[in-house]
Amino acid sequence: MKDKLTIIKVGGKIVEEPDSLARLLSDFSRIDGLKLLVHGGGRSATKMAADLGIETTMIEGRRVTDNDMLRVVAMVYGGLVNKTITARLQGMGIDAIGMTGADMDIIRSHKRPAGKVDYGWVGDVDRVNGEALATLIRSGIVPVIAPLTHDGQGHLLNTNADTMAGETARGLADIFDVTLVYCFEKAGVLRDENDDDSVIPAIDPGLFEKLKADGIVTGGMLPKIENALKAVADGVKEVVITQASSLDNLRKGTHIRL
Amino acid sequence: MKDKLTIIKVGGKIVEEPDSLARLLSDFSRIDGLKLLVHGGGRSATKMAADLGIETTMIEGRRVTDNDMLRVVAMVYGGLVNKTITARLQGMGIDAIGMTGADMDIIRSHKRPAGKVDYGWVGDVDRVNGEALATLIRSGIVPVIAPLTHDGQGHLLNTNADTMAGETARGLADIFDVTLVYCFEKAGVLRDENDDDSVIPAIDPGLFEKLKADGIVTGGMLPKIENALKAVADGVKEVVITQASSLDNLRKGTHIRL
Repeated sequence: MKDKLTIIKVGGKIVEEPDSLARLLSDFSRIDGLKLLVHGGGRSATKMAADLGIETTMIEGRRVTDNDMLRVVAMVYGGLVNKTITARLQGMGIDAIGMTGADMDIIRSHKRPAGKVDYGWVGDVDRVNGEALATLIRSGIVPVIAPLTHDGQGHLLNTNADTMAGETARGLADIFDVTLVYCFEKAGVLRDENDDDSVIPAIDPGLFEKLKADGIVTGGMLPKIENALKAVADGVKEVVITQASSLDNLRKGTHIRL
Repeated sequence: MKDKLTIIKVGGKIVEEPDSLARLLSDFSRIDGLKLLVHGGGRSATKMAADLGIETTMIEGRRVTDNDMLRVVAMVYGGLVNKTITARLQGMGIDAIGMTGADMDIIRSHKRPAGKVDYGWVGDVDRVNGEALATLIRSGIVPVIAPLTHDGQGHLLNTNADTMAGETARGLADIFDVTLVYCFEKAGVLRDENDDDSVIPAIDPGLFEKLKADGIVTGGMLPKIENALKAVADGVKEVVITQASSLDNLRKGTHIRL
């Protein structure tokens, strides 16, 4: 039987505000068993860029990453956010290690070719080094992963944190019994966006098609669920979309299953 | 017999300029056997602070680190410089991992008590987790260490890179046959600062006292040699002070020995 591994993805909003970060890390620290954290940091990057007089351009929710913006995300994601979380977790007795995809070559990607849009130094994941991550995890270490990868040619690449979490889950699914949890602003995928009690408890591929057709699932939730379905199709046991405050009871969120 | 480990410390000037960094990493990549890199980044931190309208205060060569400056050094040392080097080394086929003292709890320190000067979030090293580092190193991984530590209470601390290199060397001296190399602007410790051919080939405690008394070794070189002598007293095989361009021939520099 494979060991259970819980992968938590948290977005910028939670990790960038001291109170919500403290709560998140406290909840994270109480998760039983093996675990791994993937974090964002987009809001801090945008703010830091502005402070440095660098303009942020987002296209379809993705950050255009020129040389200056790559420096900003390397600093903010790889340094400020990642190392602050790592030190905090150490202070809670968790043997964390902050990483990007470049560290130990854990996540390699290729620069997205310029098509209709040139996103610059943005990477699409090619492969996750599951064995390297598993060796750390099995020795009691908790990886904290920033949304940066590398191309194996010496370049850092900016990579979407949701995607990294999904790819990491898939890359570890052969080794561990993986639950992937996307922390979300709402209690889960809602049937009615104005009603927090309307969480859809479970979504499988058939229901997803129906929810799409009925216009219930739209916008940014579409790629999130598509990523989740791809992860479970590749052996991830379950993907949960839930509020960060519900990490102690994952039954509350939306469960994406085959 | 213990395995040989070479620890290289490079300062900000070398790592912050693309050409000298490329040369350094190329030389570093050719060092045989087990190795570890400790880097600085002070000049970049000062520049980034200025770009953000944050004033840098140095007292006796040490950076006063208030909340804002801690954010800057976390970004610049832990993110920009550390991850750039890590990705570059990966591109050269070296399985690097970028770390601060917080990662895997490798270097723990305490906040320097405010005395005549309050340096703020500056840490003095308490202990190096040699076993954790050795496990990585033995599995073929090359640690790249940024000059940041943590206090085990959740706080990052700014720590002098020369000191970190010395402490890391001492912390690994029981496990490996350690050579510590301080890359310096000059070819070594010079008898005449205007004559690059006047490198003092070897310094032991007796000669150090004499060089001090004669006013030949002064200023910033004093703590460097004191650190080096402390390291060899604690079992580090040899400390070499040399030019980055001489990494391929360590016989050229100044050798600090007991």
